[in-house]
This record gives sequence, C-alpha cells and structure tokens, in this order.
Amino acid sequence: MKPEEIEKVLRSVKTGRLTVEKALERLKHLPYENLEFARIDHHRHLRQGMPEVIYCEGKRVEQVVKIAERILDQKGDIIATRAGKDVYAALKALDERLEYNEYGRVATILHAKKEKTKGAVLIITGGTSDIPVAEESHAVLRVFGSRVNTLYDVGVAGIHRLLDNREALLKPRVIIVVAGMDGALASVVGGLAAQPVIAVPTSSGYGASFGGIAALLTMLNSCAAGVAVMNIDNGFGAACLAHKINTIGER
Amino acid sequence: MKPEEIEKVLRSVKTGRLTVEKALERLKHLPYENLEFARIDHHRHLRQGMPEVIYCEGKRVEQVVKIAERILDQKGDIIATRAGKDVYAALKALDERLEYNEYGRVATILHAKKEKTKGAVLIITGGTSDIPVAEESHAVLRVFGSRVNTLYDVGVAGIHRLLDNREALLKPRVIIVVAGMDGALASVVGGLAAQPVIAVPTSSGYGASFGGIAALLTMLNSCAAGVAVMNIDNGFGAACLAHKINTIGER
Amino acid sequence: MKPEEIEKVLRSVKTGRLTVEKALERLKHLPYENLEFARIDHHRHLRQGMPEVIYCEGKRVEQVVKIAERILDQKGDIIATRAGKDVYAALKALDERLEYNEYGRVATILHAKKEKTKGAVLIITGGTSDIPVAEESHAVLRVFGSRVNTLYDVGVAGIHRLLDNREALLKPRVIIVVAGMDGALASVVGGLAAQPVIAVPTSSGYGASFGGIAALLTMLNSCAAGVAVMNIDNGFGAACLAHKINTIGER
Amino acid sequence: MKPEEIEKVLRSVKTGRLTVEKALERLKHLPYENLEFARIDHHRHLRQGMPEVIYCEGKRVEQVVKIAERILDQKGDIIATRAGKDVYAALKALDERLEYNEYGRVATILHAKKEKTKGAVLIITGGTSDIPVAEESHAVLRVFGSRVNTLYDVGVAGIHRLLDNREALLKPRVIIVVAGMDGALASVVGGLAAQPVIAVPTSSGYGASFGGIAALLTMLNSCAAGVAVMNIDNGFGAACLAHKINTIGER
Amino acid sequence: MKPEEIEKVLRSVKTGRLTVEKALERLKHLPYENLEFARIDHHRHLRQGMPEVIYCEGKRVEQVVKIAERILDQKGDIIATRAGKDVYAALKALDERLEYNEYGRVATILHAKKEKTKGAVLIITGGTSDIPVAEESHAVLRVFGSRVNTLYDVGVAGIHRLLDNREALLKPRVIIVVAGMDGALASVVGGLAAQPVIAVPTSSGYGASFGGIAALLTMLNSCAAGVAVMNIDNGFGAACLAHKINTIGER
Amino acid sequence: MKPEEIEKVLRSVKTGRLTVEKALERLKHLPYENLEFARIDHHRHLRQGMPEVIYCEGKRVEQVVKIAERILDQKGDIIATRAGKDVYAALKALDERLEYNEYGRVATILHAKKEKTKGAVLIITGGTSDIPVAEESHAVLRVFGSRVNTLYDVGVAGIHRLLDNREALLKPRVIIVVAGMDGALASVVGGLAAQPVIAVPTSSGYGASFGGIAALLTMLNSCAAGVAVMNIDNGFGAACLAHKINTIGER
Amino acid sequence: MKPEEIEKVLRSVKTGRLTVEKALERLKHLPYENLEFARIDHHRHLRQGMPEVIYCEGKRVEQVVKIAERILDQKGDIIATRAGKDVYAALKALDERLEYNEYGRVATILHAKKEKTKGAVLIITGGTSDIPVAEESHAVLRVFGSRVNTLYDVGVAGIHRLLDNREALLKPRVIIVVAGMDGALASVVGGLAAQPVIAVPTSSGYGASFGGIAALLTMLNSCAAGVAVMNIDNGFGAACLAHKINTIGER
Amino acid sequence: MKPEEIEKVLRSVKTGRLTVEKALERLKHLPYENLEFARIDHHRHLRQGMPEVIYCEGKRVEQVVKIAERILDQKGDIIATRAGKDVYAALKALDERLEYNEYGRVATILHAKKEKTKGAVLIITGGTSDIPVAEESHAVLRVFGSRVNTLYDVGVAGIHRLLDNREALLKPRVIIVVAGMDGALASVVGGLAAQPVIAVPTSSGYGASFGGIAALLTMLNSCAAGVAVMNIDNGFGAACLAHKINTIGER
Repeated sequence: MKPEEIEKVLRSVKTGRLTVEKALERLKHLPYENLEFARIDHHRHLRQGMPEVIYCEGKRVEQVVKIAERILDQKGDIIATRAGKDVYAALKALDERLEYNEYGRVATILHAKKEKTKGAVLIITGGTSDIPVAEESHAVLRVFGSRVNTLYDVGVAGIHRLLDNREALLKPRVIIVVAGMDGALASVVGGLAAQPVIAVPTSSGYGASFGGIAALLTMLNSCAAGVAVMNIDNGFGAACLAHKINTIGER
Repeated sequence: MKPEEIEKVLRSVKTGRLTVEKALERLKHLPYENLEFARIDHHRHLRQGMPEVIYCEGKRVEQVVKIAERILDQKGDIIATRAGKDVYAALKALDERLEYNEYGRVATILHAKKEKTKGAVLIITGGTSDIPVAEESHAVLRVFGSRVNTLYDVGVAGIHRLLDNREALLKPRVIIVVAGMDGALASVVGGLAAQPVIAVPTSSGYGASFGGIAALLTMLNSCAAGVAVMNIDNGFGAACLAHKINTIGER
Repeated sequence: MKPEEIEKVLRSVKTGRLTVEKALERLKHLPYENLEFARIDHHRHLRQGMPEVIYCEGKRVEQVVKIAERILDQKGDIIATRAGKDVYAALKALDERLEYNEYGRVATILHAKKEKTKGAVLIITGGTSDIPVAEESHAVLRVFGSRVNTLYDVGVAGIHRLLDNREALLKPRVIIVVAGMDGALASVVGGLAAQPVIAVPTSSGYGASFGGIAALLTMLNSCAAGVAVMNIDNGFGAACLAHKINTIGER
Repeated sequence: MKPEEIEKVLRSVKTGRLTVEKALERLKHLPYENLEFARIDHHRHLRQGMPEVIYCEGKRVEQVVKIAERILDQKGDIIATRAGKDVYAALKALDERLEYNEYGRVATILHAKKEKTKGAVLIITGGTSDIPVAEESHAVLRVFGSRVNTLYDVGVAGIHRLLDNREALLKPRVIIVVAGMDGALASVVGGLAAQPVIAVPTSSGYGASFGGIAALLTMLNSCAAGVAVMNIDNGFGAACLAHKINTIGER
Repeated sequence: MKPEEIEKVLRSVKTGRLTVEKALERLKHLPYENLEFARIDHHRHLRQGMPEVIYCEGKRVEQVVKIAERILDQKGDIIATRAGKDVYAALKALDERLEYNEYGRVATILHAKKEKTKGAVLIITGGTSDIPVAEESHAVLRVFGSRVNTLYDVGVAGIHRLLDNREALLKPRVIIVVAGMDGALASVVGGLAAQPVIAVPTSSGYGASFGGIAALLTMLNSCAAGVAVMNIDNGFGAACLAHKINTIGER
Repeated sequence: MKPEEIEKVLRSVKTGRLTVEKALERLKHLPYENLEFARIDHHRHLRQGMPEVIYCEGKRVEQVVKIAERILDQKGDIIATRAGKDVYAALKALDERLEYNEYGRVATILHAKKEKTKGAVLIITGGTSDIPVAEESHAVLRVFGSRVNTLYDVGVAGIHRLLDNREALLKPRVIIVVAGMDGALASVVGGLAAQPVIAVPTSSGYGASFGGIAALLTMLNSCAAGVAVMNIDNGFGAACLAHKINTIGER
Repeated sequence: MKPEEIEKVLRSVKTGRLTVEKALERLKHLPYENLEFARIDHHRHLRQGMPEVIYCEGKRVEQVVKIAERILDQKGDIIATRAGKDVYAALKALDERLEYNEYGRVATILHAKKEKTKGAVLIITGGTSDIPVAEESHAVLRVFGSRVNTLYDVGVAGIHRLLDNREALLKPRVIIVVAGMDGALASVVGGLAAQPVIAVPTSSGYGASFGGIAALLTMLNSCAAGVAVMNIDNGFGAACLAHKINTIGER
Repeated sequence: MKPEEIEKVLRSVKTGRLTVEKALERLKHLPYENLEFARIDHHRHLRQGMPEVIYCEGKRVEQVVKIAERILDQKGDIIATRAGKDVYAALKALDERLEYNEYGRVATILHAKKEKTKGAVLIITGGTSDIPVAEESHAVLRVFGSRVNTLYDVGVAGIHRLLDNREALLKPRVIIVVAGMDGALASVVGGLAAQPVIAVPTSSGYGASFGGIAALLTMLNSCAAGVAVMNIDNGFGAACLAHKINTIGER
C-alpha cells in the first residue's frame, strides 16, 4: 500500500465518502497480511519508499500467485524477481497488463506509469554473460521510476571500450557495475567516477571463479575507495540501493 | 590539489600575478607525483571529490612522512588511516596541527576547518568492540565535512536498545552499520530505515566468526534489500561512500 | 520397541501367558536387528525416549521398505524423513495408515495417537522458502507427541511482523527458529526470548549464502547467548532436541 | 537489575518507604544504561532469566571496569568472561569479593550465594586441553546457580574411560560435551544419553583441525540426533543454554 | 602383465620354445603401451604387486573398451572401477566372464580364480548409505585375493552395535572404516583396534557435511593415533593399501 | 581486423583504389563494434597479436552467431571456445568451412591456412580425462599458427612413462602440462625442463579434488621454480600464453 | 603398563610372591588412572601394542610432569611429543635418563633399550624444512623399536636426487613421505614403491600452501593408488601406523 | 656448477692439465651433493639455465651457511631468497662480496658480473606495499642477468598513472605485475600489453583479501587471456619464468 493510497482513504473518511468500517477494512492490513505461508509487508512502501517485491525462488508458483492477488487487492504494484517462465505464465493469466523482462527474469504489473527521475542510473557490464543480472537491475529500476542508461560488455580485457565512453561516466547520479570472472571493472570504474559506485559480482566464469566468489572478493578489496558491494548476482539489491541514492538527488 | 586551488592558480595567471612558468610548476604535478615508491594522486579530489588519503598499513613510517610532505607542499590536507602511534609521532613532528583519533587510528592535518554538510551520517555499532572501526568512519567523515551522529552498542541481543532510538533512524541521509560476530544488526536496520544503509563487518568475535567472514556473509545475504557491503573493518570505505551519497543531497 | 512393550512381555512371562522361549524370541532383537545393509536400533526408544527414525536419503526405496517392515513387525512406529514421493508410495502400499507431510517430506505410520504434551514448541521461519525445513520439525514433533505452534515468514526485513507477535514468544517452552539467507532472525529471537532457542539454518538463498553457510555462521556467532545450532536444513534434529527439552517440563 | 530488586522498589513505593522520585531514579535505567561506548542491558535478567554478562575480549580494561561499576551501582552481580589477568587485577581492586576461575578466565562478584538447582549439568571433555573451555561453562553455571558435575579427559581414543562412567551419564538433566580435534566424543555421548546434549567444539588441535572447524563440523553432522552445537570455544554459550534447560526441570 | 607371465616368457626363450623375436614382441609392451589417449601401465603388477586398474570416470565408454582389449591381449585381468551400467554392458559384450558389483560399481574379468590370503580385511560402515563405497573396497580386495569380512551400519549413534561385535575387531589384519556425516566411527574403531585402521570418508550426509569434508576432517584429526586417511569416497584406494598391508603378513 | 588488413586498406587509399569514405567505413570499427549485448574488440589482433575469440559459455547461440557474422564481415577469423554441439551446428550453417575439435569444443573458421611456427609447443597430460582441456589448447594453438606436439597420459603414478619420453621434453620452446587430481605432473616436468612450463589444473578427479582446487594449489606451490599457472580447465589461456612465448623465439 | 608387566604380576600371585591385595593394588589402575585433568590410559600398550604417549601441546608443563610421574610409577616408558624446551627441562629434572630429539621435539625416558625390528621404515622428505616433522616420526619409531632409515631433501624439483636412490626404495617394509609446498613427492614415491606409503603433509611453504592444505590435498588426490594420508605435520601418527604395519611383518 | 665450469674441467683433462682423479673429484658432485639435511642440486644450472637458489624460510641460519659454503666450494654463485637480517649477517661474514636487497630480502654473492640481456623485463606494482615482492623479482632477475625496468604504484584506483606510462608497456619482452588487494592491475595490463604477462598476487591488504587469496583469484580469472599466475608473494618464481622467456628472445 502506497502512502498516497493511505492518504486517499483517510481523506475519504474525512469527507464521508468512506465509512469508518470500510476504511478500517482497507487499512487493517497495513502492517502486513498473513497468508500463513507468507506475511505480505504491505507498508514497506510507506516505510522504505519501495514496494514489497516478490522473490520467486524457493516459492511455488501457486504461492507467488496468491501473494500477487493479495497485493493487487490492496492496489499495490506487482514486482516479481527471479520469475521463471512458469511464474510468468501464471501471472499473465492473472492480469493482462503483465510485462516481462526475459533476460532479467522480472515480471511486473503496474497500475500506472511511473514518472521518471531526472537523475539517471548507469548500468555497466564487463561481458555479455553478465547482462541477465544487469537486466534484473534495469527492470526493477524502471518500475521504481529511476531513469536508466546502459553500457554493456566494456570489461578490462579491452579497456579502450570503457575509456572511449568516459563521458558517459560523468552524467549519472549512481553507477552500477556488473561483472563476473575477475570483477576488475568495478575497481577501474570506481577509480574514474565521482559518483557512488555499486558493484555486483556475477556467477559467470568457471574454475577458480567459484560461482562468483572471485569477483566478489575483488570488489570487496577494491583499491578504489567506497565501492558498495552486493551479493553475487544480486541485481535486485543494486537497484534498490541505486534508487534510494538517486532519489536523494531528486528532492 | 583541490579544485579551488587550481582555479586560483589559473586566475592568477590570467591577472598576471603568476607567470606561466610558475603556474606550470604548480600544476605540473596535477595528475600525480612520482616518488618512485609511490605516485601521489594529487588530482583525486578534482576527479572524485575526496582528497588522496594515505593508507599506512604496509608502508614504512618514513614513506608515510615523505608522502605527507609532498601533499603538504601541494597545499593538500593530510588524512592518514591505519596510523599507529609511530606514524602519529612522526607526523606530529612534521606539523603541529595534527589531530589524532586514537580509537580509529586516523591522523589528520587540515589547512582549514571544513564546513559541515546539512545532512548527517548516522553511525551505529552492534557492540563496544566495533567502535574502532566506527571511529575510523567517524574521523574520516569529519575531515571530509560530513555531519556525523553516533549510536553505539545497540546490537540485536537487546534489540530494545535500538528500537528505543528509532527516531534517531529517521533523521540522517545515510546510515553506517558497523557490526561483528553475527552482523545481524545490518539486516534489522536495513529493514527499518528508508535511507541507504552501508554495512561494515568487523573482525571482532572468535571461533566461527573467522575474522569477520561470518558478519560479512550475513550482510551480503541481508534479507533487507539494497544494503551496501564493505570489506571487513573497512570503516574508511564506508566513510567515502557515505560522504558521496550525503553530498548528493546537499546540492 | 517401546518400554511399555518390553514391560508387557515381562509381565506375560511372569503370569505364564508367555513361555520363556517365546519371550526370548520377542526380546532377542532388543539391542538391534541385523538386515546386513542396516542394523535397526530397536531399543533407541528405551535408551533415548525417541523411536528409531528412517533417514531415507542415500537409501534405496526397497531398503526403506525392508527396514519399515521389520520395525512394524516389532510393533514400532514408522517415522521416515527426507521421504520423496517414491518412498511415500512404497510405504503407503505397505500400510494404509501412512500419513505424509508433503512440504516436510516426512512419512509416518503410527499404531496409536500420541498424547500431546502440555508445553508447546513454537516454530518460526524467516521466509516462505524456509517452510519445508520447518515442516520437517513440525511433522516429527507431532509424532513424538509435542504440541506445536507456528509463526511463518516473520524475517527481520520487516521486523514489525515479529514484534507484533511478541506475546506468542512468551508461551512456548522451546522455540525453533528456521532461517536462510542472513539467518539474523535467530539472533533477534534469541535476544527477546527467555526460553531455549534452537536455530536451524536453511539452504535457501543464493550467491554468497553458499547453500546455508552464511546463515549457519550467523547462528553460531549469535550475539544472543546460548542459541543451539543445528546442521543446515536439519529440521529433524531440531525436533529431537526440542522434544527432549519440552518433556523435561512435563515431569 | 533482578526481578526481586524491582519488586522491592515497587513495594517500597506502595508502603511509602520510597518516594516516587527516588523510585523513578532507581528504575529509570531499567531498559539499559548508556555509557556511550556501551549500553548496559540492566533488564536482561528480567527478560531472559540470566544477568548481563561482560564479555571482555575487544574491550579495554578501563571499559570493563566502568561497566562493572554501573552494574554494581544497580545491585547487579558481575560476571566477566574472557577475563585476562589484567581484568582480574582491576576488578579485584574494585571489589574484594571477586572470585576468579583462572582456567576458565571468568571473574565474578556476587552479592549473595546462589541457591543450587536440584538438577545437575554434567560437563565432559575429550582431553586435557579442552578443560579451559569446560571451566568457562563450569564457572558461569555456578554463578547462575546450576549444580555441576565434571568428567574430564574421556575422549574416544580410549572409549573405556567413558563407558566406565556410563552411570554418570544417567543422572544429569543436561550434558555439555567439550571436545577439539575430531570432536567425535559428542556423537558418542549423543548416542548414549537420553538428555539434551550440548556440544562445544574447541580450537585445540593442529593442522587440519583448522582452529576448531573440524570438531565443529563433526558436531554439526553428528549421527546422534538433536545435538545442540555452539560456536568454537564458546563455553559461555553452552552454560547459558544448559542453565535455561536445567531450570525448566526445576519448576 | 604379471610377473609369472614374464617368467614364463623368459623360460620359454631359454628352452627354445619361443624365438627371441617372439619373446621381444611379447615383452616390448612391458613398460607401457601407447594408445594415444592412454598409456597402459602393463608392468604395474610387476612394480607394485597390483594390476593396472581402469578408472572409468572421465573416460568415454569406447576408451574403456579399447584399454580393456589391450590388457586382455596381454593376458591381464580387468578391474574397472566407477563403472556405470553403460560400461558394464560394453565390457560384458567384450567378455562373457565379466562380473559386476552393482553397489560398488566395479566390473572385473579374471583369467583365473585368485587364491585367498589367510589374513582378512574387515570393512566396517557407519551407515547404510556408506555401503557403495565399502563395496568398492570389497570388490577390489576380492579380485586382489584378500579375504574380506564386513560389518555394516554400526555407527556411533548406537554404539552398542559396534561394541556387541568387539570380537570381530580382534581377528582381521587390517580394518577399513567407511563413514560419512560425522565420520566419528573411525576414531572409535581406531581407539579399540590394535591393527592398522584405514578410514574412508564418504560424501553421504547433507548441509555442513560439505560432500564429505566434515568426515574427512574428523578422520584427519582422529584422536586415535595413526589412522590412515583416504580421499572422500575412495574405496579403491583403501583396498589397495589394505591389500599391501595384508600381504606383508602372508610372507 | 588483422594488421595486414589495415595496411591493405591504407595502401588502397594511397593508390586511390579506395575512396576515403570507403576506407573510413572499413576502419571505423577499428577499436570495437557495438552490438549492444557485446562490443567486439576488432583490434585485439593489432594490439595483442591474437584475434578476438568468442567464449561461448554464458552466451546464447544467437548471440554467438551475430558476433561471428560481424567478425566475418570484417574479414576476421572465427575462433569459438567452449562451443557445444548447438553452437557447432549454428556456425556450420553460417559458413561451410567451419572445423570443429569435438574433444576440445573449439569451432574455427579460417580465411586462410596459417603458416606454422618453427618452434613447437608440447602439450602433456597426466591422464585420459585431462585430454579435453589439452585439446582446447591444441585447437587454439593450431589456429594461432603454433606447431604442437602432444604426450598424453604420462602421469606420475607410472613416472617411467614420462622419463621414457625425456628427449621429447628437450625440443619444444614451451611446455603445457595439463593435469587434474594431484596435479603433481607439473612439478615433475617443471623440475626436468629448461623451457617455460605452463600448468593447467583440470577439474577431473573427485572428493577432495574439489573440482580442480587440489591440482591448482599443487601447481601454485610447485617446488619447481617459475611454473606459470592458469585457471582450472583453462586450456585456452594456456594456448594464448604459449603462443606469445613461442613467437618471441620466431623473431 | 606393558603386557609383560601384567604377566609378571599374575605369575607372582600364582607363586605366592605377591599377595592378592598387593596384586590388586598394582592392577587396579589397569584401565586408566584419573588425575582429574587427565585420565592416563595405562592399558593402551595392552590394547594397541603402543604405549600411552603424552601430547604436550595444550597442556601446562606441570600437567605433563604429573602425568609422567604416574606413568613412571606404573613402570611405563615416557614418550612426550611436541615437547618444547620447558617440557624438556622439567622432565630432565624428573629423570636423568631423558633423551631429547630437538628437531622433532620428542622427549623420551625408556626403562630399557628396545630391540629393533628386522624390517625397516624409510622416511623421506621433500625439503630441509620438512625435517622437523620427519624427525618426530623418527624419534617415535625408535622408541617403539622400529628400525629406521632416512632420505632427506629429495623433492621433485630435482627428481634425479630421488631416482638416484631408487634401490633405497626397495628395502624397507613401509615408507613415510614427508613433504610440504606441492606435496608431489608422495605421488611419485607412491607410483614407484611396492610397499605401503604413508604421506605426511607439512605446513612448510607460504601463500597458497595455506599452512599445509595444498600438500594435504595433493596427497589425498594422489594418482598413485592407496597412499595413506596423515594430518598436517603429524609425524607422530605416521610413526604409529608405520610401526603397526612394520610389526605385522615381524611375526 | 655452471656449464662453462664443467667444460673447463673437461678441457683441462684433455690437455692434461688435470688428472682424471682430480677431474672426478670436481665432477662427482655433479648431480647433487648430500649434506644429510639438504641435497644441493649443483647441476640445476646445467639442466635449467638457472643456478640452485637457497630458499631461507624454514631453514636454520647455520644450515643456510653450510649450503652456501658448499656452493661456493663448487664455484657457484649464491642467491639466497627470503633472507632475513640474521642470514644477511651470517653470509656477509662468509664472504665480503655479499650484496643485499633489503626490501626484497635477497642476498647474493656473485663471482663475476653478469652480462645483461638486450631484452628487458618490466616490473609493475599496484601499490607501495607490493614493492617488497617486486624487489624480490628485481634482485633475482639482476643476478640472472636480465635487464629490468620498474613502474611502481600505478594501481587502478588512479588508472591515469598507468595510462600515462603506456609507452613503457611497449618496450619490454615480458611484464611482471605485482598487486595485492583486488589484484585488478594484472587484468588491465594483460588487456593492454602484447607481451607475456606474469601476475604475482601479494598478501598486502586486510579483511576479505584473506592474505592474498582475493588477488590470486582475480588473476586466475583474469578476463585478459593468457596471464601467467604465480603463488602469493612469489616474486622469485616470477623472476624465474620471466628470465626463461626473456632469454628465448636473446637467441
């Protein structure tokens, strides 16, 4: 439930358009709603400026659908991450407006178009195989309302590809660097950019990349100061942090 | 060399107060200065909004002193982190103005008082033994110019200590959570706060804390979305990121 | 073989209803029974207050069935954990009374309903994907006879969901906390509750959760004192310990 | 502050022996007291049945002393763990009643002798080098009021030493097994005993014991069901859990 | 090529039954035979007292067949370990005499029955799921000619199952202990037995057993002195070592 | 784009056979070409003496095809590594000249036969299951133009197989050692050979080989000085380094 | 207490030279003797053919002395491993006969010279820094009575040093290979020798040797079949196993 | 013993200046010389083009001295790595000509000045604290005879420091990159340079750098193809490999 929704309810009560009983009904789920297998955090938007998001991994399709139904009932937007094709199909059946970012595996149902922020988030990847994680960030930032630019496959094996786009590094408010294997791109961008840099290690690679540990450690030890590190493949988390930072500049 | 310094040089050339030769002399170290064992990044401030910082670990005291001398020559401020008592003594001998945060092991020589930002950074620790890392952040943020508040020893073993200070969580622009052992405080704060949260795992703990790995993993896996994670004991990095975010709100 | 069973045999001998030879036949399997591929520990109930349990992972379906047959022959109850659908089907064919907790993958055949303890065990999960492990505990505790309450999906990303149920934390004799990802819920509950708290890390999560290692380390390093930690996904072990503690209070 | 203390204050107000102002003064520190570097959790006893304990590692001696002074001011008992000789000396100077368990490094100042529980906790070690951890448990359990028995150096390399003491395993309400190296003792005791078994891995050993990881993993994977595992060398945590379980049986 | 074979060739040359040219032909493959993708070590038997063994994992079925053909050509026995059903079928087609231990996945083609040693090797397992590894040892020892006894599922969760078979521990010349999960059985047997004990950790278990690492570490840290440790699931290696030791006693 | 190609373009401009506009068209992709999901590094050959190579893992088949098309458009050679059968089929459809090394999973389309270097690279494997990685090196070296010899399955379990081929170690300019399990072959060859030795650990093995970590550590700790270590299974990297070294000797 | 000692007591009783009471006094400590901090396993010699050994690490000097006194009282031999100079001095004061192997840190007090076995144990090291571990084996084997030969610093970086001593590999009954860094020597010896090979990884090395983990993994993954692996730096364990095997051949 | 030395001996025999007996005496130590605690590999120079080097870690000072004496007796050069001040003093006492690189801890005694190669090795470091490892390479390369250039403290946090020196990257035959923390410099240089690049991770850093593991993994996973990786802090190994490659170009 978004703050505007709550305000609308309260105004309706004031003006008599809504009885106290009905308002109560609408608001009683405010803190969360108990489905036994899940407690939906309806007031996350109120508390954190971002809506409740359905993380689909480890949930059965029917559980995702039930949660989505309850959020839609409360006039909330649906953002489902790690959404496979089965989730996509089930949610599409629920609501025709569903949009699906196949690369990023993010499914969304929005009640209204978001206004875009003035400031932008730039998403950079080291390689082609990092794009799914970058697209998770991309899709989530778009539904949150942040303007997004992308610069894909500019890893340090051919650093001229990055240096050639140096002016692109000047404009955004926040930069997300998504890289697997050696993860070195985060340090290079961190050393060049004046903005906050968010580094997302990916599990792309093999052998001693250990499913992303190599890139994760590179980023944690970045000799560029102050790089924010996310969990491996956590494009969603990067989007949340980037959006929070981006909106500080909007005020 | 700070941007204002460069501007001053350029204006002096324009008005004839400085010959081109002398200006050249002043500016020629702009990109960096080569001491053989170190290349001082004089234009880091220009490029990243934060001055070059001397990380003392792994450097001999005489190397730290030489670097400091060159920076002072260029009218730069000195910020030395991981500065033990021997470094402190040597720098104090160099310049009487030196200030030393003993807990945080940060030594600073500032040419002028910094103006404080309007927005504040809140630094929270889980326990008493996390304070040295928090104080590294604190000392660095102060010399960068960010306003700082602290809330120490409010770990989840007695969560009422945190909940009791809930309104303190509402005011800052950024929050730094410093915690060792289970590192759980970052998730709790991350779930409560609307602001960007920066988590710093510390090496305090024993046994299966593995020198901070336990807290690091907790923070990387935080079920609160978008928590920015730093390297173990990296209070300096947290300060850099927090300051970058904080100044976005100042504009 | 349960103590009452043995007592009955002995009384029958005393009263002459059973010849010594037949009694011997009945009791000779007391310590264990050798099936070559398995030695069934018939007197575990006598020794530890809990019956022998069939752990199905790593056993072939026909082995599980043979073990079950021998236990049923000895009038024992069947509790099979990590029981997939193939085990379920094979045991159902053996005995119609079979009950199956699909989430927790526990199959049980009880000769008689258990009386419930007065004291209760509360099972809490951080998220929806932790429920299978919680249900393993739940199913096992039920057949052991412990009263169980559940509180699912109250992780620290929205801590109000837990605080809102604070009185639920006051009533049980023992609390089991099941959580993956950051595992932070165990510390928070451990700090709030006066009862023994048993923490079960789960393998839900991704990237640096390393299949449950992150949650395991969090729990081992809990800043709340005295939290009992189980192996990753070991809902069964948590149930055993919880039942042992719970029955101390029954005496 | 112990519950009886609070009750006494309240009764004194009722009977007029204490003015409301003075009572307020006494109670206002109830939740916790802020020393800036530490927030003392005065009502931990009220909440969890065990007093606040000072964990000395990572604290400076003067910090330990200041915390101890505040607790004594509030009529609380002092229990300081991981207390080296310097802490011992400083606390002895504070209060002559101080007792010190040198092996377990636990320093205690009690206002009154504790009444002992009827039920006992049995502490078993695998070897001689595990005794310091066992003694931490021992010392803490004694000041909590639990009756304690010990059985040291009965590791599985000579299992007759344990089997010879089998009747000793029958009497206690809870058993703590402290073992390093292979940690196998926990599984053997866990298979023999009907009571809750708490396993504490120790860092004694060398090479592939990895500072206690080997014993920790053994205990987490114990084939005896329901063994409660503590962090490496965490004798204190074992005492807390054992005391909680032991007191359930006292009611 | 076995020593007797070589001797026979040499005697035939001496007596003139074999021309030097033909003898050369027979012996020229002595050191090894080059198949490009493999160099068969025909004189391993001569050098180490055990024949060349085909380890099937990582080899294509047709490669296994080609190697087997060359060994049969040289009158060698076939021992193929980690042999899946496809290897079994292909080798069966090659030679009708093939025998297959399905549990241990060992396929063998012997030209003649081996005489059994007088001394025996005892193989013990902790649980039922350790039997496949034990059977690999069993099958290999049988074709090497060592007498074998087995004692399965006597893990420490019910140690009476082992103690009850104590006299079985007195008779063999060597003991192999195969155990997963906590691997504690190796220490207990190592403490009871006077013979060399060979410990094989298995990958059975889950969570923090980390695919056998827990059992491996337990065995490496065994407080019983002198336990020989093998790689995880390496039943074959245990058989080789056990046979070498066993034959020392035959002389 | 190869240097000769660029030279040809420039000469054509000089002689008037190519208009400046057309030359521009040809050269403008020099640094790289942006396909959004990939930026093809056309001038890698110019910069590093080796062409851009398509690493297929983590790329969709259609992405591989699109990149290949662009490279072919620029008259570049195609070298696709980690190319499964689906990639093979798709590229074969694109260009009939495609050659495929099935073991090494390398697909290549060459515009012209490479001249072979005079110096040779020797590739050695420890076992049969290391051959796929060795063949990746082999296939890549061939298209780079390096002469290659192989010596497979000469691991240290039968070291006479290696010693017997000692003269083969004398001739090459560079030696690549590919080995899994204990990886010991690299140290032995490193101790015998005068040439640069490149060690490639493979993931062949089981249990405590941990997917190649054991062999990797062996090679990093080689007591033979100066062994160059590659990532696990990185036959491609070994080929690149070997070729660079080999061509130094060609000059 | 050695078997001969017990026999002597029994014979004395039979012949009347010893009263039953006195014999009882002598034998009652048979199983073990309780010093509270240690339970001395006096009948280990009887049970395992090797006397109780005092492992000094983790024991205070006065504890070692007390244990030694009790063993001497029971006519036992003293073997103290990991004995630093302080232990040496204290035991020397106890009994003048003390011998001390300074490299191997083994202190011994023998009541009589041991007769040497006919068969020998060969101890090989890879380098000079592995000698302390080898000498621990050496010293222990000598007091057990096994004949010992040594071959030090023959690591694979110069394999001719080993091959040159190939005939030395033919004579012993058992071979112990002690090696750090890459640990490759164990595989090479394991491939050459017909005898049981015991491999002891050492912590010598640096960086990615990880305190002996690299050598340990090499040995566990040895491509030579049947190598027995010990814990890192466990020269004592190797001696125990070698002696057990060696004495099989003596019968 | 260097090849020229051997040649001289042989010529002297031929011309009669040396009796066969005396020549024998000189040459008999050719393969190696046995000091019991060490076998000096005198013919390493003959076999590998580089002299035997004394690695001082894990050796006692007197052992280093004895080895040095023997090498000097054989007219060999002394190169001692990881040589602390005590080794330095002892060797200086042995031979006045000793030179000592204090940063790199390399002590050398050369009988004659080396002629320098035409080709050069460039050594680059990321930071100041990586210089000791770089200087180990530097000192060793100098005594081997390779020309060396250095470029220190040009890490990616200020990548302009490297790009500014781009032409320096064009000239050498081999490049050594020494970097700790994130180790990203190796990838950047690997992407820019056409020459063989040797990467040496260092243990400089803290927290999640895990003593150099982070940098090691970065380098193993370098997205620049063909980077040769050395053990952590292994400046010596890098020098050996670099020299071998460098000399290929000299021919």
